Amino acid sequence: MAELYVVGIGPGDAKHMTAAARAALDASDVLVGYEAYLDLVRPLYPDKETFSAPMRRELDRCRRALELAQSGKTVALLCSGDAGVYGMASPVLELLPEYEGVEVEIVAGVTAALSGAAVLGAPLGHDFCVISLSDLLTPWEVVEKRLRCAAEGDFAVALYNPSSHRRADHLQKACDILLETRSGETLCGVVRSIAREGQEARILTLAELRDARVDMFTTVFVGSSATRKLGGYLVTPRGYRR
Amino acid sequence: MAELYVVGIGPGDAKHMTAAARAALDASDVLVGYEAYLDLVRPLYPDKETFSAPMRRELDRCRRALELAQSGKTVALLCSGDAGVYGMASPVLELLPEYEGVEVEIVAGVTAALSGAAVLGAPLGHDFCVISLSDLLTPWEVVEKRLRCAAEGDFAVALYNPSSHRRADHLQKACDILLETRSGETLCGVVRSIAREGQEARILTLAELRDARVDMFTTVFVGSSATRKLGGYLVTPRGYRR
Repeated sequence: MAELYVVGIGPGDAKHMTAAARAALDASDVLVGYEAYLDLVRPLYPDKETFSAPMRRELDRCRRALELAQSGKTVALLCSGDAGVYGMASPVLELLPEYEGVEVEIVAGVTAALSGAAVLGAPLGHDFCVISLSDLLTPWEVVEKRLRCAAEGDFAVALYNPSSHRRADHLQKACDILLETRSGETLCGVVRSIAREGQEARILTLAELRDARVDMFTTVFVGSSATRKLGGYLVTPRGYRR
Repeated sequence: MAELYVVGIGPGDAKHMTAAARAALDASDVLVGYEAYLDLVRPLYPDKETFSAPMRRELDRCRRALELAQSGKTVALLCSGDAGVYGMASPVLELLPEYEGVEVEIVAGVTAALSGAAVLGAPLGHDFCVISLSDLLTPWEVVEKRLRCAAEGDFAVALYNPSSHRRADHLQKACDILLETRSGETLCGVVRSIAREGQEARILTLAELRDARVDMFTTVFVGSSATRKLGGYLVTPRGYRR
């Protein structure tokens, strides 16, 4: 059976990859992915065949991976973080009915919400939302609506894709929406280049976050009303001490 | 420096553990955790010292782990799934100021929202919420409010702790709240004993989920309005095909 693994490789460093992810890469004839993700695993597999396509050419990458699998190769399609969370699992499964005989296995990985949270402490210790601020594939009104609902529900929030060249003000707009409901003193955190060289983390208030400059390599965390700063850590209590 | 690792061991099977989690367990003198989690790793470390305390005695386990670390041992405190998501990272960091000289490292892991999603397909392919239905540490009104906000925001939702002996009707109550806003045809999924022997998964509608019987080993997924059933998979599109 032709096999395609859709693999979450975690934040970058091989040590945050699961054994199942490693086994899928080991078993594969071809590694397919965005060039920057291939660069992360090339040192582990210097001799494997690879195929890359640029950012925003995700469907090309999915189709190529499916074609290669259909041709009889064992293929791993690499996703940063998890395979499912804003990953390639969805588009692959949408295209799969067109590729008879290909068997797909989704291999979960540590998404940036979890790896970034571990750097900051435990900001996602209770109920939380994950929201992408990219409007490439989602109308911005939907993003705004979800931010309002997340704020109203007093969720801790992990924000993906907080900024890019094309939409440098999205984080500011998002903070303004959160600030309609939530205090400016709400504790937040940013983590850049999680588990990669030059990793940086900072704890700040929602008011400060509004005016912070972040880039596309940053994951942003907004605490709930219960989130506290404790000894340099950002912590959302589960409530055991209440 | 006395060291305490708070380790997310993933859903159960060693193959879903990250290399960093394995390294933390390798380096530890003592493994501390709920008995069922210790059972999962004992085959890997038959000779390691262990300390367990029953469910609901989480603070005892945290204090014991901190005391052992302070006494000079290297300690791993085990969490199912991730270390942060409803895990021990929060209570450990809350108690840490009482334990001078102990250094804590949080090791992220694959939480049930991700590992369960990978079994079903890609239900969390777009923005999502994670909500626990346990009211042991959270007033039920807060849970209800968050369910309403999640439904209103048209998030995909992963529900943890959907049921227990004491609160067998929580999932039904949760579904009734979601059904105030969301269609009964909304696609949902349940996964039981993720990555363990006897793993079971099922795709069903929100109306069917309301009357389904689930236990505490089950993680429940509720799709957004965009979630579809495709070739036996539950898929929330990222939108590439639009």
